[in-house]
Amino acid sequence: MNIPKSHPRFVSLSIREKIVKGYNDGLVAKEGLLAHGRGEAFDYLVGEKTTKTAKAAIKAAATKLLSAQNPVISVNGNVAALCPKEIVQLAEATKANIEVNLFYYDEARKKKIEKSLKKAGAKQVLVDSPRCIVDKDGIFVADVVLVPLEDGDRTEALKKMGKTVIAFDLNPLSRTAQKADITIVDNVTRGMRLLVSACKKSKPTKTNFNNRRALSSAVSEIKNNLRRRGSLA
Amino acid sequence: MNIPKSHPRFVSLSIREKIVKGYNDGLVAKEGLLAHGRGEAFDYLVGEKTTKTAKAAIKAAATKLLSAQNPVISVNGNVAALCPKEIVQLAEATKANIEVNLFYYDEARKKKIEKSLKKAGAKQVLVDSPRCIVDKDGIFVADVVLVPLEDGDRTEALKKMGKTVIAFDLNPLSRTAQKADITIVDNVTRGMRLLVSACKKSKPTKTNFNNRRALSSAVSEIKNNLRRRGSLA
Repeated sequence: MNIPKSHPRFVSLSIREKIVKGYNDGLVAKEGLLAHGRGEAFDYLVGEKTTKTAKAAIKAAATKLLSAQNPVISVNGNVAALCPKEIVQLAEATKANIEVNLFYYDEARKKKIEKSLKKAGAKQVLVDSPRCIVDKDGIFVADVVLVPLEDGDRTEALKKMGKTVIAFDLNPLSRTAQKADITIVDNVTRGMRLLVSACKKSKPTKTNFNNRRALSSAVSEIKNNLRRRGSLA
Repeated sequence: MNIPKSHPRFVSLSIREKIVKGYNDGLVAKEGLLAHGRGEAFDYLVGEKTTKTAKAAIKAAATKLLSAQNPVISVNGNVAALCPKEIVQLAEATKANIEVNLFYYDEARKKKIEKSLKKAGAKQVLVDSPRCIVDKDGIFVADVVLVPLEDGDRTEALKKMGKTVIAFDLNPLSRTAQKADITIVDNVTRGMRLLVSACKKSKPTKTNFNNRRALSSAVSEIKNNLRRRGSLA
């Protein structure tokens, strides 16, 4: 489909095309299409832009990733379809490992994701095996794990393993958002790019980011946006 | 997948299974999976229950359908997957025609939807042809059209044709919600059942339903729900 740049939903529709292409290419699961739809709705409510709260979270995430001993970026099908280049750039800027972790396990899909990340420039891609939850050189030994677009059960499991978790999640009330140490309430296609440049500029210092307060601001931003859209409609 | 009834997201996950089954059976388009995801997010914000405002809209919709000369229920893949029996019951209760209308046109998919509606008990199912937007015995001559889950462009086209439009839409700010004469801000799987019983009980009287006011209440309900969920989190 050829979407004209003047279309009021051009950006959102272009992102949707990436996900559908990812599905057609075998990277994205059916459930990934549903999850993307949920993301679209929350992005609409967030105002389809990176909010002040999200920018602060990105800054804190950059410092945390740069101070980590063994940072790992956990990638699923949707992330691989939406921002493979940014994942590679982030891994380089933070000396992080990239690990493919699928919620709906599928060997063929995993191989395709691995291949697409390498095509985007990744030198090494770790993968979980069918018998293990995580790769023994990757998340297992990681201290900081970045999970863009993760399921609540998995985020809880990472927290129980004692990991510091940085998440992207457009729903500030989701379990992932609530359980993570730093939640970036932003669309990965916007936020990941900003996170890469923040990592290039930042230094590994301490951060006193308060996630609970940030999530509460994110909820307020949605409420304000609803008020604004409601009065425009 | 076997979801235990005790799972906190049992209802939402069961509805999702119907959509995924509909996709596997060839009724639902890829874009329908994405649209369902958006619906899940808004249903979450609405509180996953039929609100007071939605109940009032259902009551108004029942009166409007019963007073219509030629009511038509427009069905797409998602509706056919989610509530085929309710569609048939509603058609019987209101003497309405059922017409299959697909946003993403696909002859094979249309045939499958038609077949599934007949299997659910529909005596007659009208279909649009590749050359026409609507069936000449259906929406073309209809005065009242019920569009559960419709695209904004299509709703605008129906309004331009002078139809009275009743819509189901979980996003009170969408173009469909804003353009329709009566918008039921509810999940079709809940709302359609209530609409069927309302049609069995109601009489064809006049209704002075104010859609603008109802949509503004729906936005407030979402804001209140965000506040409540925010403080529980």
